[in-house]
Amino acid sequence: MSGVRNLAERAKVASRKLARLKTEEKNQLLCAMADGLAAQEEKIRKANEEDVQAARAAGTSGALLDRLELNEKRFQEMVEGVRQVARLADPVGEVVKRWTRPNGLEIFKIRVPIGLIGIIYESRPNVTVDSAVLCLKAGNATLLRGGREAKQSNRVLADVLGQVAVKRGLPAEVIALVADEGRESVAEMCGLEGVIDLLIPRGGTGLIATVVQHARVPVIKHADGVCHIFVHRDADPKMAEAIVVNAKCQRPATCNAAETLLVDRVGAEKVLPQLGRALQGKGVKLFGDEAAAKASGLDLQPPKEWKTEYLDLTMAIRVVDGVEGALEHLEQYGSHHSDAIVTEDRKAAEEFMRGADSAAVYWNASTRFTDGGEFGFGAEIGISTDKIHARGPMGLEELTSYQYLVAGQGQIRE
Amino acid sequence: MSGVRNLAERAKVASRKLARLKTEEKNQLLCAMADGLAAQEEKIRKANEEDVQAARAAGTSGALLDRLELNEKRFQEMVEGVRQVARLADPVGEVVKRWTRPNGLEIFKIRVPIGLIGIIYESRPNVTVDSAVLCLKAGNATLLRGGREAKQSNRVLADVLGQVAVKRGLPAEVIALVADEGRESVAEMCGLEGVIDLLIPRGGTGLIATVVQHARVPVIKHADGVCHIFVHRDADPKMAEAIVVNAKCQRPATCNAAETLLVDRVGAEKVLPQLGRALQGKGVKLFGDEAAAKASGLDLQPPKEWKTEYLDLTMAIRVVDGVEGALEHLEQYGSHHSDAIVTEDRKAAEEFMRGADSAAVYWNASTRFTDGGEFGFGAEIGISTDKIHARGPMGLEELTSYQYLVAGQGQIRE
Repeated sequence: MSGVRNLAERAKVASRKLARLKTEEKNQLLCAMADGLAAQEEKIRKANEEDVQAARAAGTSGALLDRLELNEKRFQEMVEGVRQVARLADPVGEVVKRWTRPNGLEIFKIRVPIGLIGIIYESRPNVTVDSAVLCLKAGNATLLRGGREAKQSNRVLADVLGQVAVKRGLPAEVIALVADEGRESVAEMCGLEGVIDLLIPRGGTGLIATVVQHARVPVIKHADGVCHIFVHRDADPKMAEAIVVNAKCQRPATCNAAETLLVDRVGAEKVLPQLGRALQGKGVKLFGDEAAAKASGLDLQPPKEWKTEYLDLTMAIRVVDGVEGALEHLEQYGSHHSDAIVTEDRKAAEEFMRGADSAAVYWNASTRFTDGGEFGFGAEIGISTDKIHARGPMGLEELTSYQYLVAGQGQIRE
Repeated sequence: MSGVRNLAERAKVASRKLARLKTEEKNQLLCAMADGLAAQEEKIRKANEEDVQAARAAGTSGALLDRLELNEKRFQEMVEGVRQVARLADPVGEVVKRWTRPNGLEIFKIRVPIGLIGIIYESRPNVTVDSAVLCLKAGNATLLRGGREAKQSNRVLADVLGQVAVKRGLPAEVIALVADEGRESVAEMCGLEGVIDLLIPRGGTGLIATVVQHARVPVIKHADGVCHIFVHRDADPKMAEAIVVNAKCQRPATCNAAETLLVDRVGAEKVLPQLGRALQGKGVKLFGDEAAAKASGLDLQPPKEWKTEYLDLTMAIRVVDGVEGALEHLEQYGSHHSDAIVTEDRKAAEEFMRGADSAAVYWNASTRFTDGGEFGFGAEIGISTDKIHARGPMGLEELTSYQYLVAGQGQIRE
């Protein structure tokens, strides 16, 4: 039996123990984990320092190096994050629905943990802690497979959390870290049918593609966001400018940042010149179709394609024919993540919202709000780009399944 | 481009049109489909007769042949089933939750169709109609791939339904039938990432395994049910007998029929002799462990394994140590489908229900109630054996996804 399968099977057994813990027991465990991390800060940061030095020696670039580093502020935030998760309401045990059948059977649909959740992610070591404790709060064990760069940090973090579990009479594998950061361990996790109940890949398109190709277990992808802002003919120009600039520039590397600006053909020549100037003023490199170039008065080159997730200060502009034209563009080129309409016309907004097949559809607001924290979920494991089970920000509720408890008095089926 | 992909892409386009229909429009379409089927009864039954004759000529056995046949009664039931689906409440558009954030954003979580649902099934031609109309009521298009034996029946059925759609201004591909009944079309459907939003395989272990192996799209499996009845020391013996006999014998070929009888070690010698006699009296072939043989006074051979789904009048009996022993058995050998405890002791029942990781857990009732109709869902597409998105009977609600509609007044993220 391979090491990954063996570890996963022990984590699966651990998940059944976790599932039966009371809320108070889980909260105490989480607080003890926060204390345990705080007590081992020196050891953890020393391991992280080794990762950072190794990455630097390997010539790793600024952004990646930055994500890897667990500095004092991030460490404190990570520990505080664990305490925050302890304070969130427990979704497990909630009676979602109850009803009685004509034959007297009482049916309760209740929230239960999913079981063992596999999480595959890249460089940031705080994801190890964030994901594991969020899953744990919902009664799930985790099988974590982090990036090679954060190897030392992740091992010490998982070790500290596991030791706390053991001290409280639980198996260390309630949080299990795969000690093989190569692509093979990803493929192995994908094949653990009947052991891993849900696999969440968080990362670039290469990682997602590998998981989709190999997966024999249920997967919820956290993939691309090609988000759009559609400026309708009846938009307030000032509001449109504020929303477009915010959605593009406030944090362009996130999945909920806008990549494409769609402008209604009616009124394009009135609104586009100022929108173009505002974006360029923020350092945004613009592409655009012919109509956009004409209406804006800017010298725009057409984009290579409309499906690109730039993840930086680049934006493509296209002129479309009203709401229908915008919806057609979304259907053909969008990634169904987050899309917005800016308009003062309620009917147009409703038409857009009814027609857009996006996880989150905004009317007069920035797409940057697609986030568990901004939605009020308290915390999120990520943003699902799938439509099955969880769509958009995944919080505690989305980390649960349900089961039916049926109470009878001897009923049999005729 | 392959024929299957091409058809699927047209069905995907059709799904977006369906998604925007109002409830009344969908209901009218469904009623017109029922009328269309009724008007073409002769043609449909003639095609079915060809299938039945071909199967008979190929030496097909009784049960399979029976499932294939669309006799007058079944035809009427099928048409009436379509009208019933028209009368069910529409889940689409339901506001599952709404709240307002401190920044004034109003968030609505609403039910929306999933999109294009692929369904792979075996011989019964009425499944073609049942599945397609249930998906359609929830606003989904279907890509159907039926069994080779029902080829002629399925083609005529899909053709009739498609013609009705066209008459009402919709693409015929709101219900699309794959005209290739070989294993290759299954593999092709499995690979249609980004086109098929959900794939539901309904069938034997071979089919399920093929789908799991090839799937690059989300799958909800409708697989095995290895269901258990646990007779606790405080069970009412008469109730236990009625439930065990019903769960095993009332329709043994279904996934919610019981395969294994677990008996509490305490009191086994009191209850097992009569349980054994009752089952044997119904023609049930019994296997059992040593303790079961001793307590029952019957000459029982041990079963080959405890994981078998017999699907006929065969049952395995094992003596276990109380609720914990029963739960350990379920964890090790069960399929997490439907499991029951028979007891008058509320505390034991609660312990069992809290510990059993089954889609449906029964207290003093037969496992045979795990069914969309029996649960009051009006209709079901099948019984999910997965824990993601849908668990247990899948009705209309489980054939939907959700999206967030967010209304603002120009909010941007700081």
